[in-house]
Amino acid sequence: MISFSSRWVKVCFGAITFGAVSELVYFTYRKYKRRKWQTNQNESESRKVTEEVLFFPDDRVACKDYFVGEDGCNNNDCRFTHFPNSLSRLYEFINGAKGRLDVCVFVICCIDLADLLIAAHKRHVLVRVISDGEQTEITGSQIWNLRKAGIAVRTNKSSFLMHHKFVVIDDQLLLNGSFNWTRQAISGNQENLMALGNKRIVSLYTNEFERLWNAFDPQKNG
Amino acid sequence: MISFSSRWVKVCFGAITFGAVSELVYFTYRKYKRRKWQTNQNESESRKVTEEVLFFPDDRVACKDYFVGEDGCNNNDCRFTHFPNSLSRLYEFINGAKGRLDVCVFVICCIDLADLLIAAHKRHVLVRVISDGEQTEITGSQIWNLRKAGIAVRTNKSSFLMHHKFVVIDDQLLLNGSFNWTRQAISGNQENLMALGNKRIVSLYTNEFERLWNAFDPQKNG
Repeated sequence: MISFSSRWVKVCFGAITFGAVSELVYFTYRKYKRRKWQTNQNESESRKVTEEVLFFPDDRVACKDYFVGEDGCNNNDCRFTHFPNSLSRLYEFINGAKGRLDVCVFVICCIDLADLLIAAHKRHVLVRVISDGEQTEITGSQIWNLRKAGIAVRTNKSSFLMHHKFVVIDDQLLLNGSFNWTRQAISGNQENLMALGNKRIVSLYTNEFERLWNAFDPQKNG
Repeated sequence: MISFSSRWVKVCFGAITFGAVSELVYFTYRKYKRRKWQTNQNESESRKVTEEVLFFPDDRVACKDYFVGEDGCNNNDCRFTHFPNSLSRLYEFINGAKGRLDVCVFVICCIDLADLLIAAHKRHVLVRVISDGEQTEITGSQIWNLRKAGIAVRTNKSSFLMHHKFVVIDDQLLLNGSFNWTRQAISGNQENLMALGNKRIVSLYTNEFERLWNAFDPQKNG
């Protein structure tokens, strides 16, 4: 029988204890680090980057009241669709603006989308619109309604087109593609609109918006 | 003086040795893991996802021969610019196609860009073009030149617009924005074109291209 008092048993026991304690300390430290990492991970999950693509045409025009109206749609004979589609998603994006809406779109004729800008303006979102000068004159243009509601609109004076079709929402989300704000684009044409939350890309468009906003300042350019 | 033969010195010595050896083993393992991680990291760096935005107009039109011509530009009086700009970057993207070029653009009038498609077709890249039916009839349209060179072109027959302006290169890179392939878009209009390598987004546009390619098949639709 091995005696517990043997010198080598004590040596081994000491070595194992030391090893075990040092591992215990190390794993406690790792566990703490991992928990911290998981917290960061959850935080970044909660602000997950938007990355969506909307294709048009929609089969039917989405009901604005149903998707983003304060009281929903109360019309029993509503001729618009209550099924989610590309336009309803666009309503939600625009209606989600908290502080700032920079709209830089060639043609704005769609009354429902213009109404969402006016609604945002009324709830104190800073709405700024850049559009093409000649397109403000066409039948159905909503630019005059936007101006009448107090929204600042700037346009180019040159014969070349202000042909962008992008929107930056709260400096955080970019909508961009081929999509002009017309009824034909919604329910007739082949169109696309990307919704991207990529910070670096959004900032490039924010800068472009500021550049054009200054370039089209009527006080600078008469 | 402490005797080296003391039992407790031996216990401590054994413990420290055991601890040191176990740490050494652990750190060697970590180093190996880290090296493996760095190798993976370098690999993913090398296939870094493209994320660029090109804004137009350019001050001057970029010289196609200088940027992507086989022999560069040999014209001493070249009236095009040799400084990199948005158009020169677009030349590079299109010229970089190895196997497949899916072009879905409303208007194609720019001869230089059409020539790049023909050059890609000649080097056995599968080039497919979707464009707007009515726009193929306008003065300066390059659709007939593309067809004459043997490139497959499909167009919509409806009165609504095929208004997309996107290109998918090698199923890996998406070009998308407001930019039509016209001289006015290059050197006059306010336009944008994003270049995105994001796999998920690229695949959505590849699917859309296939959907339209089938929808506009003349054999199906007369």
